[in-house]
Formats: sequence, C-alpha cells, structure tokens
Amino acid sequence: MKKIGIVGATGYTGVELLRLLAMHPGVEVSFVTSRSNAGTRVDAMFPNLRGHCDCEFSDPGDDALGDCDLVFFATPNGIAMNHTPELLKSGVKVIDLAADFRIKDVDVWSQWYGMTHACPELLETAVYGLPEMYRDEIRGAQLVANPGCYPTAVTLGLLPLVESGKIDLENLIADTKSGISGAGRQGKLPNILSEAGESFKAYATSGHRHQPEIAQNLALVAGSDVDLTFSPHLLPIIRGIHATIYTRDDGSLDLQTMFEERYKDEYFVDVLPAGSQPETRSVKGSNMCRIAMHRPGNGSRIVVLSVIDNLVKGAAGQAVQNMNLMLGFEENEALRHPAMLP
Amino acid sequence: MKKIGIVGATGYTGVELLRLLAMHPGVEVSFVTSRSNAGTRVDAMFPNLRGHCDCEFSDPGDDALGDCDLVFFATPNGIAMNHTPELLKSGVKVIDLAADFRIKDVDVWSQWYGMTHACPELLETAVYGLPEMYRDEIRGAQLVANPGCYPTAVTLGLLPLVESGKIDLENLIADTKSGISGAGRQGKLPNILSEAGESFKAYATSGHRHQPEIAQNLALVAGSDVDLTFSPHLLPIIRGIHATIYTRDDGSLDLQTMFEERYKDEYFVDVLPAGSQPETRSVKGSNMCRIAMHRPGNGSRIVVLSVIDNLVKGAAGQAVQNMNLMLGFEENEALRHPAMLP
Amino acid sequence: MKKIGIVGATGYTGVELLRLLAMHPGVEVSFVTSRSNAGTRVDAMFPNLRGHCDCEFSDPGDDALGDCDLVFFATPNGIAMNHTPELLKSGVKVIDLAADFRIKDVDVWSQWYGMTHACPELLETAVYGLPEMYRDEIRGAQLVANPGCYPTAVTLGLLPLVESGKIDLENLIADTKSGISGAGRQGKLPNILSEAGESFKAYATSGHRHQPEIAQNLALVAGSDVDLTFSPHLLPIIRGIHATIYTRDDGSLDLQTMFEERYKDEYFVDVLPAGSQPETRSVKGSNMCRIAMHRPGNGSRIVVLSVIDNLVKGAAGQAVQNMNLMLGFEENEALRHPAMLP
Amino acid sequence: MKKIGIVGATGYTGVELLRLLAMHPGVEVSFVTSRSNAGTRVDAMFPNLRGHCDCEFSDPGDDALGDCDLVFFATPNGIAMNHTPELLKSGVKVIDLAADFRIKDVDVWSQWYGMTHACPELLETAVYGLPEMYRDEIRGAQLVANPGCYPTAVTLGLLPLVESGKIDLENLIADTKSGISGAGRQGKLPNILSEAGESFKAYATSGHRHQPEIAQNLALVAGSDVDLTFSPHLLPIIRGIHATIYTRDDGSLDLQTMFEERYKDEYFVDVLPAGSQPETRSVKGSNMCRIAMHRPGNGSRIVVLSVIDNLVKGAAGQAVQNMNLMLGFEENEALRHPAMLP
Repeated sequence: MKKIGIVGATGYTGVELLRLLAMHPGVEVSFVTSRSNAGTRVDAMFPNLRGHCDCEFSDPGDDALGDCDLVFFATPNGIAMNHTPELLKSGVKVIDLAADFRIKDVDVWSQWYGMTHACPELLETAVYGLPEMYRDEIRGAQLVANPGCYPTAVTLGLLPLVESGKIDLENLIADTKSGISGAGRQGKLPNILSEAGESFKAYATSGHRHQPEIAQNLALVAGSDVDLTFSPHLLPIIRGIHATIYTRDDGSLDLQTMFEERYKDEYFVDVLPAGSQPETRSVKGSNMCRIAMHRPGNGSRIVVLSVIDNLVKGAAGQAVQNMNLMLGFEENEALRHPAMLP
Repeated sequence: MKKIGIVGATGYTGVELLRLLAMHPGVEVSFVTSRSNAGTRVDAMFPNLRGHCDCEFSDPGDDALGDCDLVFFATPNGIAMNHTPELLKSGVKVIDLAADFRIKDVDVWSQWYGMTHACPELLETAVYGLPEMYRDEIRGAQLVANPGCYPTAVTLGLLPLVESGKIDLENLIADTKSGISGAGRQGKLPNILSEAGESFKAYATSGHRHQPEIAQNLALVAGSDVDLTFSPHLLPIIRGIHATIYTRDDGSLDLQTMFEERYKDEYFVDVLPAGSQPETRSVKGSNMCRIAMHRPGNGSRIVVLSVIDNLVKGAAGQAVQNMNLMLGFEENEALRHPAMLP
Repeated sequence: MKKIGIVGATGYTGVELLRLLAMHPGVEVSFVTSRSNAGTRVDAMFPNLRGHCDCEFSDPGDDALGDCDLVFFATPNGIAMNHTPELLKSGVKVIDLAADFRIKDVDVWSQWYGMTHACPELLETAVYGLPEMYRDEIRGAQLVANPGCYPTAVTLGLLPLVESGKIDLENLIADTKSGISGAGRQGKLPNILSEAGESFKAYATSGHRHQPEIAQNLALVAGSDVDLTFSPHLLPIIRGIHATIYTRDDGSLDLQTMFEERYKDEYFVDVLPAGSQPETRSVKGSNMCRIAMHRPGNGSRIVVLSVIDNLVKGAAGQAVQNMNLMLGFEENEALRHPAMLP
Repeated sequence: MKKIGIVGATGYTGVELLRLLAMHPGVEVSFVTSRSNAGTRVDAMFPNLRGHCDCEFSDPGDDALGDCDLVFFATPNGIAMNHTPELLKSGVKVIDLAADFRIKDVDVWSQWYGMTHACPELLETAVYGLPEMYRDEIRGAQLVANPGCYPTAVTLGLLPLVESGKIDLENLIADTKSGISGAGRQGKLPNILSEAGESFKAYATSGHRHQPEIAQNLALVAGSDVDLTFSPHLLPIIRGIHATIYTRDDGSLDLQTMFEERYKDEYFVDVLPAGSQPETRSVKGSNMCRIAMHRPGNGSRIVVLSVIDNLVKGAAGQAVQNMNLMLGFEENEALRHPAMLP
C-alpha cells in the first residue's frame, strides 16, 4: 500500500483526487493538508466523500509528508516550488497540479506568473506529465509537472498534425471553451450562478498563461517556434473543456488514419469515427480525451475538435495516471470507469 | 418629470430598478449612490444599461437626495432606517426594498434581523407595500416597506383563502423555491455556479426571516395567529420564485371562482384556468404573479401554486408599482411589458 | 461470471445500468435489446460507453434471453409483464425497473397505469425491491419490482417515522422535485432545454402514479391506510431527486437518534448530522440516499429532507443492488464509488 | 394603426414577435396563423402573453392576410416563397424571417436548402434586411429577407474590417456559439435538457447554411470572394449568440477607432471600450449587438467578439426594426428597452 499525501485539497482538483483515489486499491491517502481548514473533517466540506474519507485536514507544516511515497500539490501556483526540493531530498515523489514546473524557460514563467521561481534548477529535471508524449520519462521521474487543462486538450488535438511536419505552423488557432470549475472553488463575483449562468463570454483574449505552455509543447515537437492564437471562453457548465482547433495543410493529409494510428495504443485518447462531433458530456467524470477531425469543403482548412473533463484528464485524473506510471501501477488503475451520461 | 434617487444600486434589485425606470416616461433617475463604487459609471458595472443610464455612482453622503421626489433604498437590511427619518422630514418619499419597515413588532424584528431598530416610531406609519392588500394606504404613504420576495408569492397565494375564513389556520405549509438571484450579487462560495448549479437543496428549514413577515400578513387578515411552516429551497436558476402552498378546508370551497373574483381587478395577479401549473418562466422579467389552485383527489387538501419573478414582483417591479401609486402615475406604468419566454 | 440481459436499453436507466455493470467484476452483459435499434452499436448511441461495451443492440425477439442468469427490463410500463412469466419458467431471474409489479392491488394498478395486467398472479410473489425494507425477501426472489424513483426517496425518508407509530398518518405531505432525466430519453417538447431550462413548475399536482406506490409502502408498515399528499415538481437539472416531507408528532420524538439507529447498518442510507440540508449533487452518480430531519421552532411539525440520484438509487443503482442480493454478490459491488462533486 | 399579420407564430421567433409588437404603439396584430393550432388561444400556448394577446391562431388559408399592411413569415424555410408573390400583388409588404430570400444565387440556395425556389424572380428585388448595410433600400422595400442569426452577428463583426480593404480575405474564421432556442421549438431528442444541458459541442463543422449567406454579405462589400471557415457550436443556454472572429491585417489598423466610427450612428450596434469582452447576457431580450476587438500580443492577428440575442437582433427584433423602416416608424420603436440582466 503506497502512502499518498495531498497538499491543499480544498479545491476542486483536491476533491477530485480524493474521489479517484478512493477507487484505487493500491494507495492510501495518509495526509490531506489545508492550513485554513486544519481540524475540519474532509467529508464535512465534501459530502460526496462521506464513507470514503475518514480523515481531517491537517496543517501543512506537518513533517509527516516526508513519510509519503508521493505527494500531490493541488495548491495555487507558486506553492509547490517552495516545498518540492526538500521532499525530493527525502525521497518523496512529487506531482504538482499547478504551473510551477510546466514552463522550461524561467523568464517566460516569471513573466506570465508574476513571481520569481524558487527552484529554477528543477525546471530541467521536472517531467511534463502528458503520458501520450513523455510516458517513459514519467515512469522514471521524481517530479512531474501535471499539464494545464487547456494545454492537455489542445496539445492532444494538434500532436499528430505537428508531428507530421505538414501543417502551417504560422497559422494555428485554438478557440477553447471551459466549464467554470476551471475557475476554482472560490467565492468570486464573476463565478456566481447569477453572473455566469445563462451566458457565455470570451476572456483573456489578448493573452492567457496557457498559450506559452501549449506553444512550448508544440515547438518541442516541431523543432521550431509556432504561431498560436489561443482564445479561451467561459461555458455555463461545471465540467468540460472543448477545443476547436484551426490549422491548414496542402489538402493532402489523411486525417482519420493519421490520428487513429498515432493514438491506437493510448487508452485515454479516443479518436472518434470520421464526421463525429464530440460532446463534453461524453467524458464527464472520466479520464478520456475524445477527438474528431474535419476538413470543411474538402479544402486545406483543418478543424480538430477535442474534449476532456477539465477536472479529470485536465487535472486530477491525469495526475493519477502519472502517479500510476511513477509508482508502477497499471496506468489506468482507478481510471477505468466510464463517463457519466447523462 | 419626477426626480428619483436610488441608494445602493450595485445589487440585482438596483440594476432591475434602473432597467424598469428606463422605460418610465414620467421619472428621471437623479442619483444612484454606492459608497464603494463612487465615480464608476453605472453602465460599466451593468452593460445592459449602456445607452440607458448616462451616470456614475455617487457617494451616498451627498445631500442631494433631499432634492428627490422619491428615494428607493436597494440596500442591505439596516441601512434605510438610518436615513429615512431625515428624508421624510425633507418631504422626500421613501420606499425601502429591504426589511427595515416590514415587521410591525419591533421585538420580533430585532430577534430575526439581529439589530436594534433605529426608528421604531416609524414602524406604525410605514405602509406594507403589497398593493393588492393596501392600495389606498400606499397612495397616501410617505414611507413604504416593500415586501419580501417569498412573502409576496405566498401572501398572494393564500389571501383569498384566509379571507374566506374557511381554512385550517393551524395547518399552513409553504414549500418555496427561489432562483439564486435572491441571494444577491455577492461573491460567496455557495452561490458560484460550480456549487449551486446542477443541484437543489433546502435551506433555513428550521427558521427563515420571511416566516414572521408572512405570518403577520395572514394574521392581520385572519384576525388571529396562524401556524405556518415556511420551508425555502434554492433553485439552480437565476430568476423566479415558485411557492407550493398546502392547507385544508372542509372540501366545500369553490377555489377557482373565489380566486378569480378576488383578483378580477388586479392587473398583476393572473389566476390561471383550472388545472393549470404555472411555470416561473411565464413571469420572467415581468411584474405578474400567476396562481393556480388544486384539490388532489377532490378531498379537503388544497394546494396553491404561485409564481413571481423575485426581482420584479418580488422586489424592483413591486417597488415601481408602489412608486406609481405614491406619485400619481398609472399603477402599471413601465410594468406593462410581457414576460420574456423562452 | 453471471450472464445478464438488458431489455430496452436505449433509455437513461439502460445506459446507467450499462455504466454500473461495466464496473462489476462478476457479471457480463450478454444481451442488450432494442427493437427499433437492432444492429446499432450501443456505444454509437452512448459515447460514454466507448471502450466499455463492445456490442450491438439485438432484437428482443431473440430466444437468447433464456440463457441469462438475470434479465433487467428497462422498458416502458407494460412490457415486462408480457415476457416475465416465460423467463421465470426458464429459471431466469427478472428485475423490472418499470412499474408492472410494484402495486399489489391489480385494480389500483390498472386504474393508474391504464392497462389490463398480463399476469396478475405474479403480483403476490414479486418482491418490492427496496432492500432497506425487504432485503431477505429480495435475496430469495425470482422476480423483483424495482421501486419508483420518488417512492424510494420518500419511503426512506418516512420509514423510521411510520415504524415509530407516533406520527400523524392523516397529515403526510411529500413535496418532491426531480431532475428532468426522470422524464426519459425522449424528444418531447416540454423537455427541451428552451422549455424546461431556467424555469421550475409543479406537475401532476392533482394525482401522480407514485402516490399509491408510496401509500402502499407506508400502509404495509403502519398496518393502516395513510393520507398522503404527493406533489411532484420538475427541476431544471439532469439528475437528482429532493423530497421535502412534512408530518407531525406530539413533539417528543428524538429524530436524530431514531434515524441513525434505523439506518446504522445500511450502506446506502446516510443520515446527516443534525441541522444538515442535503444537496442533490452530493449523491450524483452514486447509489446513496442522504437524509436530514428538522423540527422548525422545536414544535410538533417535522420536516424530513431526502435526496437520491433518480437514475441510481432511484433506478439502475438500486436494480444492481437488488441483482447483487439475488445473485449472491456483495450488496454494494459496483456501487461503492463516491458521488461526483462538483 | 397599421395592421400586421404573422404566419406560423408557434415557434420562438413567433412568440418573440408577439412580445415585441405588444410594446409597439403603432401596430395591431390582426392575424396570427398556424395550420395545426387553428382555434387555440395564442396565450394558452404562450402564457407570458396572457393579457397581451387576446386572439386565437387562425388558419393560414384565410384570405384575410391581404388586408394587412405587412405580414411576417415566421415559418420554416420554403413556406414564404409560396405566398409572397400574391401578397406583394395585393400591396402587402412582406418580411420573411426564414431563408427563402436571403441568397441571391438561386443555385446556391437550392444546393443548401434542398428545394427548388418557387419565385426566383423575386430574389433580385428582395432586400437583405440588415439595416446597418441596407437601411435606405429597406425603407423602400416591399419584400425584406430578414438575416439569419449567425450572419447578423458575424457580418456586423467583420463589416468595418472588410470595408477597410486591409484584411486577409483568404483567412477568415468565425467560431460561433448559439443558445439552443436557435434550434427551434420542437421536441427533438438532441434538444432536450438531459441531452443538451451541462454539455457543449460543435455541429455542422463540415458545412452550414449560414456560411454562404455570410460569404455573400462580405463578398458584396469586398468586391471579391472571401474564404470563410464557419464553425458553429451549441451552447447550453436558451438565448444568445457569441461569434469569435479571426482574421489578419498587417498590424496597422486602429481597430477601436475604425469600429467606433463605422457604427457611431447605429442605435443597435454598441462598440465596447477597448479591452472588453461582451457577455451574451448583456443583450438578452434586447435588439443590441455588442462588439469588441482584440489584437493578441499586438501582432497581425485580429480577434473580434460579437454578441446578439439570437431571437431579437438575430430574428424577431431585427424584423421589427425592418418593419419600422418599411412602415415609417421610428427605427427603434418597441426596441428601446434595455436587456435583462441578470
């Protein structure tokens, strides 16, 4: 039985980690920390966990994390980087669900996240936790940077195309839409149902932190910079991300064959039959990414549709997938259940 | 042109007042105050008002309110009572959309609202602003206590029955459901879409401030105390209140005739055909209350269904209706537009 | 490996059965029938099942059902009764998720369901599939009538009170609210999002088929008839039932202790701490029923709040629970996962 | 008082026309026709109109339409073209809210709408009812083709750019999102709340009827063909369209000034302050189109955000705007009310 710690489990990625780990036969959650809620029962905050999580939030100051086999940071950006070096020294593996270790260029990171990095020396050794790109590296990693939600959906939707070397890298557009749980479990005015319900809007149109993360992923594959316009929108639903990705080739790529071939051994990437349009609800609660490709008017324009559950494949589910790889479990352990529909 | 002031217009009753008054040919809004937003353009906060409200929030300290013909308080409970005596002295009429003047018994008021009342001497002269009960008094009033949202829906649903003197006053139940705009325009965690969406729950089951207000209304009509169980619930919609009201008679009341007769001259109360079930959306954005009565199994149990838009007939619309009466306009001026469906 | 057949799996109870059984290690789904969709892949209709259900809908005429260990009928009312006698003769166990075998009095059944019963002789032997009332009988049953969704929530909310013999059986009210998946997977105008969204209404206020089912459950416990007003409403959410139940005692019952004691060994009934108000989302996707009790003003009025997921504990989950009992599995097999929140 | 007829008023554009015309002081609705609902009271189908529409649906066979000053066709595609020639001969003005007269090239029309056109000779004289492009022509028109909902939002968002002659016409993308009322008032399975709620998807990615309509609008302005990728999506809200439009220039256009200048005299086009992101709810129930422009990273990529209420500026409101022009009323009569927020 592996011992797991979760730092900062009072947000949605935290409760989702707890939901998924409750179905995992090989791990036990030893510590669930929260400074502001120390002493509170976890299931008093999250009643869905009643009967599944007989513990209290403890103070993160506790040295006990050093006894864990692996620690998840489900904290805001800028927290994990302060604790990771010491944990790694104690031999504890770390998965950060925030952005501290996602960007390799520390200057780019500081510019977008507005902080000085506490341990830039770890940026090189941290492995980007997208198993469909870096499975082997993740298996051997001590520190994994769990990808952002949008970057997961967009990168998986573009990967085969960029790998082909045949698309126009100067003309990439990702028009993305996210459910509001991506905005976190916080009492902010724009997130209340009366403000966000029955409405739709774009946000961060002029620039969003996930743009450099996606661009980095694609550039590493392409071997050159890419010009990506990233345009996120807020959906009045709780879970789900839908990416509509636009690019161009010379009209010759066999999209269906290419994507099916690329992902044929990937349990969590489902290439839909030609002509499909994936719904976000088809992945609700599951770790799947479903993808379909279109070529309007049979021209050179390519449209890729990619959906994930932002809290699962976009956060906690992918983190558990990474944990499984790092600790030697079956990659899909605790992640084999179907999505919930309707 | 009558001059109108609105104190505390940064909430939903405030913006709804502004929306309705924009359609009123006989008034101009002279002052819209907000301490924390002084200097901000009103339509920067509420973009639906662009082109309709060319003004800024001003500081409520402004003496200018004394020049108004009528001032609305769209403030939290406990604010209006501090400013009303002076305004009345200046000859300014006042409508309080909060609860400061709704309860006649100052001890009951203090118990439920947790404050000492600043001007208990005004409680007697304040008129309860339900025109269907107190139209003549409102016409002559200097100070009107605009009813609560639930009390409006429940009182209108029970009024003909209580007036009949033939129902069991010891056995009244109001199971009420409200859209979340009733919880205000505030960034509180329980109100965010991720928490309140796709869910339903009861709240304040053991006691809610609107219970004594409704009980007072009914007791004044009945001439005796009533035993009312009031049980509110939170709906995952923005606007709308639905009250399901249970009582009993001896099986002899002709409900349809009684209600149609009682409300035949009321523009804003619509008794539906027998067998109907009103939807909250049928009153969305309008000042109507729609009511239907049922007698399951033709027994002695009576079930009344009553719907309003909590922000209109339950707040700002009723306030405008009261203003129209107080200032000598047509009672339905600015309130004649149909509800928006779908 | 037990062989399972599902008749009529194109509705929401069907896809939910398939979702739950996909997580069950002891059964395999041998047949999924649908007359109108024979030949269609099941996962083409329900994309959440891609990777979990490699089969097609077959024609229900198939004799193959006789080879199953157990057959679920997820069909409209009036179908199961035509096929059950033959299946029972073949030694196949049957669980009907519709209403064919729920009501013991065939005349009452025919009156509410508008049909002549095809096999009234089975009504006596059919076991009502509420394990919290009839666990032992279900274990030995060949034919189980899976309870209605509302009857499950209301019966579990009233059971301890009726068993106590101390409440007023002439004064029971169940004000219930259901998510729209309870109306089925059918393209009917009142169910479309533009009609049912952002709105709330009562329906069947004058009489609903679940009233006699609940009344039967309670009368069997009470030993006498009960007077129950049952008043359902439609919620603009997909999953979830919330029952608000009103009754009275003489003020002496210790509600918290009584409910905790009654359900202390029930895995799927969760009595919440005193003062709680369960949210429907706290059971979304799970087989739990969460219950809380209130006594407003510490008087004689009792209010019980009871929530379930209508598709799980209110349908497919309870059916799997019954199957587990009938086939000798752990009662909570495939039903141990936490609810999904948010 | 002008006499108005509405053919086929049982859909959402029909009820919205009735809602708006109820606020118009210069017209009376003489006929509301529906073959399948003849004899039914209009307000029995649309309870929001109780008190505003004291009439029944009549049979469209009625000759009475010839007495109207103007007739709206709120019918499916392919109906208006069969009745328009005769009405025009009788001197009745016609506004078709469907697509019969929107496309000038009859072959393109037939290809996308799958019908032979009944009166191709009228295509030339029909005026495309976008007042911001064709105000003068509409004033003198006998027959107006009311624009599609998406084409209204996208065309208004691109008009100043195309008129400038400085954007890349080979690289236009409109990623559009519509509320589900755009799918009509019909009981179709994909539209029910259980299917469309809490989810998001693309549709018609490979080709949609509004693509040639928008391309025609832009080509007429540009003087040459344009390459437009049009990609619609379905939002789980009732009202609202959001268009996110991507194009490119050489980086030199002053977007804010250009748009403000172009629309400075347009009552119904609101160019938001620089940096804004319009929400669909900011136009709910109103005839406004709100627009904002972005240039991510200050490069050559241009992103335009444009929102309308699909039932108002995208259908019935624009039709009333056109009617006002055709009959000599103030252009914004019955359309001056603010949007409803929240």
